[in-house]
Amino acid sequence: MKVLLVFAHPEPRSLNGALRDVAIKELEAQGHEVRMSDLYASNWKSEVDRADFPSLAPDARLKPAKASGEAYAADALTADVRAEHEKLLWADALILQFPLWWYTMPAILKGWVDRVYAYGFAYGVGEHSDQHWGDRFGEGTLEGKRAMLLVTAGGWEQHYGVRGVNGSIDDLLFPINHGILYYPGYDVLPPFVAYRVDRLDEAGFETAAERLRERMRTLETTSPIAYRRQNGGDYLIPSLQLRPGLGDPGATGFALHLNGAGIAR
Amino acid sequence: MKVLLVFAHPEPRSLNGALRDVAIKELEAQGHEVRMSDLYASNWKSEVDRADFPSLAPDARLKPAKASGEAYAADALTADVRAEHEKLLWADALILQFPLWWYTMPAILKGWVDRVYAYGFAYGVGEHSDQHWGDRFGEGTLEGKRAMLLVTAGGWEQHYGVRGVNGSIDDLLFPINHGILYYPGYDVLPPFVAYRVDRLDEAGFETAAERLRERMRTLETTSPIAYRRQNGGDYLIPSLQLRPGLGDPGATGFALHLNGAGIAR
Repeated sequence: MKVLLVFAHPEPRSLNGALRDVAIKELEAQGHEVRMSDLYASNWKSEVDRADFPSLAPDARLKPAKASGEAYAADALTADVRAEHEKLLWADALILQFPLWWYTMPAILKGWVDRVYAYGFAYGVGEHSDQHWGDRFGEGTLEGKRAMLLVTAGGWEQHYGVRGVNGSIDDLLFPINHGILYYPGYDVLPPFVAYRVDRLDEAGFETAAERLRERMRTLETTSPIAYRRQNGGDYLIPSLQLRPGLGDPGATGFALHLNGAGIAR
Repeated sequence: MKVLLVFAHPEPRSLNGALRDVAIKELEAQGHEVRMSDLYASNWKSEVDRADFPSLAPDARLKPAKASGEAYAADALTADVRAEHEKLLWADALILQFPLWWYTMPAILKGWVDRVYAYGFAYGVGEHSDQHWGDRFGEGTLEGKRAMLLVTAGGWEQHYGVRGVNGSIDDLLFPINHGILYYPGYDVLPPFVAYRVDRLDEAGFETAAERLRERMRTLETTSPIAYRRQNGGDYLIPSLQLRPGLGDPGATGFALHLNGAGIAR
């Protein structure tokens, strides 16, 4: 497989840097081809602003979605964004690697999403009708490809458990897994998460590294999270509400959007 | 009251710009004093990197939490971050205003959080023992102050309902409301959200504006979201798991972390 790893930590001599090297080495040992977008090393620009749309008239009001769609259609997005599109289309699998800062990704990686996920590329794709509300949530430009998160967290695993004070890790990562990866079509694999990383000794690192190697060895075969496809019949259109009777009765929360049978559809 | 509004949209002539002006005008009409941090207008730097810690030795490995704590203790953070600390301590209420991009805040606002929320200021505060796991989630530097989100979303309100395909808006905003605002001590008010903002006509704008004015008139009196205090007895320490018997039986998801009685504790 071809794998793109997007790396979002400012220090190469960090645990994140070490885990990245472990992942890439194992992927290459398995015969995969790996490319990397090292956001800090490339001075990635995080902010969506006028400079992203060079053909926008200087006095025109900036409407980000509209400007993005026009620039994408005219192949007039900036070179850094176009290079990421090329990599995303090249890769069979995408790995986003980051430290969990304030319960989500660092700004620089959010800025990669905000800028690379252009209208016409990652959203605003496909038929938009009473039967089909755009190619999204299981369909889209990146359909058929796999994606997963590689995350480090300072807190304890229990703090991120189903009853942990932070909220569960699956719920915290849902806006990314479902809203950013599943949205443009990726099959989303369960995340790799290393906890208590500020206190990791050598044995702890080796345990995490071996767990990560195993995930890299099974990147092609791991079952994706069983999110429900938006246009597959589980949601009413256009309200996009989960059809009555689906999901556990009385259930709330993001888990509603998993297929109860636990099978990817 | 003293109110700080942090504004994160690149275009002043946007719906966000118009809503911001409505909010500020109403707050001032009520006798409140308002200051603003306009992140785009001030060219806010989004990325946590070595430049944030001028006293870090050039060859030292960057450990963000450690560097942040040392720089905060030595009053050696950069001037832009120190200015935000001063504003946060000055304000009785904080409003974060942003368009929902990929189900969360834009990168520039995440970068405001990542950089302003220093160790010793927003985290790493207070006693850390078997009885008290730091001053956080209801306690901390910003305790006794109020905070709320002012959000615009392109999708329909139903799409963000309890059974909507995006996940519910309360769950999507939980990592911000609970993990970013409640964490350092804020009383978090229910968010103001305007939906379908790309299709808003004049009447729709006026309806949203009047709803926002009402929220500004009641900023001092609206009941906060009833999150559970971490150190108030509802969570076991150090596992930080919600005590058995609390929360609806079988319940999952972020709603567990609300006090069932619906009263702020």
